Amino acid sequence: MSKGLLTEAYKRVAPHIHCTAILQSRLLNEKVGAAVFLKCENFQKMGAFKMRGAVHALLQLSEAEKQAGVITHSSGNFAQAISLAGAILGIPAHIVMPKNAPQVKKDAVLSYGGKIYESDNTATAREKRTAALVALHGYTFIHPSNDLQVIYGNATAAIELLEKQPDVDILLTPVGGGGLLAGTALAAHFFGSQVVTVGAEPKNVDDAYRSLQAGSIQYNHKNSTTIADGLRTYLGDINFPIIQQYVSEIIRVSENEIRDAMRFVWERMKIIIEPSSAVAIAALMQQHKKFRHKKIGIIISGGNVDLDNLPFNI
Amino acid sequence: MSKGLLTEAYKRVAPHIHCTAILQSRLLNEKVGAAVFLKCENFQKMGAFKMRGAVHALLQLSEAEKQAGVITHSSGNFAQAISLAGAILGIPAHIVMPKNAPQVKKDAVLSYGGKIYESDNTATAREKRTAALVALHGYTFIHPSNDLQVIYGNATAAIELLEKQPDVDILLTPVGGGGLLAGTALAAHFFGSQVVTVGAEPKNVDDAYRSLQAGSIQYNHKNSTTIADGLRTYLGDINFPIIQQYVSEIIRVSENEIRDAMRFVWERMKIIIEPSSAVAIAALMQQHKKFRHKKIGIIISGGNVDLDNLPFNI
Repeated sequence: MSKGLLTEAYKRVAPHIHCTAILQSRLLNEKVGAAVFLKCENFQKMGAFKMRGAVHALLQLSEAEKQAGVITHSSGNFAQAISLAGAILGIPAHIVMPKNAPQVKKDAVLSYGGKIYESDNTATAREKRTAALVALHGYTFIHPSNDLQVIYGNATAAIELLEKQPDVDILLTPVGGGGLLAGTALAAHFFGSQVVTVGAEPKNVDDAYRSLQAGSIQYNHKNSTTIADGLRTYLGDINFPIIQQYVSEIIRVSENEIRDAMRFVWERMKIIIEPSSAVAIAALMQQHKKFRHKKIGIIISGGNVDLDNLPFNI
Repeated sequence: MSKGLLTEAYKRVAPHIHCTAILQSRLLNEKVGAAVFLKCENFQKMGAFKMRGAVHALLQLSEAEKQAGVITHSSGNFAQAISLAGAILGIPAHIVMPKNAPQVKKDAVLSYGGKIYESDNTATAREKRTAALVALHGYTFIHPSNDLQVIYGNATAAIELLEKQPDVDILLTPVGGGGLLAGTALAAHFFGSQVVTVGAEPKNVDDAYRSLQAGSIQYNHKNSTTIADGLRTYLGDINFPIIQQYVSEIIRVSENEIRDAMRFVWERMKIIIEPSSAVAIAALMQQHKKFRHKKIGIIISGGNVDLDNLPFNI
């Protein structure tokens, strides 16, 4: 691992992504008694930071691999990210999605030009279907979060933030599969001056918190649920060691705290964030005493919600 | 009228308001074939440009007038603006609201410290109640849009935009009572270099369009309705002459165009705008051929919506 790898990743992805706005809110600053900088990846292409990792992973492929095409399994933002990145870079994108994925998510993938393959709703079925397609067609599999090139790409959001706000004390991101938290922690380590990286996770699916405690990757009960549905995944063998080494703590928040944070941002800050992003804001609010008088950068991970099924009242 | 009056207004209000962000969207630019700069007054204090006019009008009062307090009639953003400006400047704020105003709007006024007086739902009843309170208590009446100090205050949004983007060709705002359009047109005239000011109005309540055609203030049928409920008002004798002299045209948009524009901004740009703001985006989209290759500044007037009653499906 070196700073050079991240610098190169940053140069590679920059032409293909938005350098997103950093917003401040006097209201939020007053509420938590800190200076908070929101890196608005909800304004990113396809509406989430996942675009960065997807673009970077695709750019690292050989010409033959690019021609053969790529495949991922995801029902969420990474499906859209690979689809759009594929369309931009001229690489065929194949997406394995569970049968019960909402139509709105399937439509988004199709609108970006991704090709969908349905699988049964278990992780095993999804992986089996993906492996079969790889075996038959020679697609390159790209994991949504446990892939070093994806992690390097994700790191560029924090690199951009640190370029504009070099004296940030703390970087805070949600943690689901671990790809954003790991990338952010690497950016903090190599580009920040004594920046502490903190994760935020729903209590209902606190596998990352328990993994750090146990020193090995832990999983959630299969019936565990959260309105931050993008965070129901678990860490992997690539990102977990990075998180172990470079992340100082993971803060857990309740479903009510997530809902309240999301509503605050929508109603008072007037930006649309998805529940996963609200998890980081909820952690900030819960631990405001700890964060008081600090400069805090938060990666607002995404803004993809179904306007016809808003999660406020779930 | 002089540039100096606007410059002074700008200096006066600046310490009390947010210099709001200017956002760009590559997606929107591609859709309309132009360079569009959104001046995000939805990020303004209390969520709308109205804060600027309210603060400026209050700052222009004498000490005795400030002590006696102010009054306005509004069921919308100006009610909140006068309440919050009054709270910030230590001036009692009295608001006459129709009985049928939504509770969420009453709650907002109360949360900012305004005192509410209910009136019957007609314009006459509202004005009568206001006049009686003025007569009895010596409050200063401040009209939401037909007041020169309010108009000067409103102008500061466009002044800020022109400071950052001096080579804008066109400024586009929604028009309801006319206070934002008049202020923006003055800013364009005195601070822009050959900037054309254009208004956008719902077809259902196109009184401003018809007023310009007729050369005299026209009104809407009392049953006319629009999802851009903030724009159901009509011009006044102060702002109409300004609009006649400095506004080049008013574009009318359908309810469907407003809804589509609003949904586009929420879904794709991830910022929360109210239907009145969507009217300007709808006009941009409808007349994209006219705007092609131009640099266009749009005042996003506000972002106050009731999240429990979203207007998409009305």
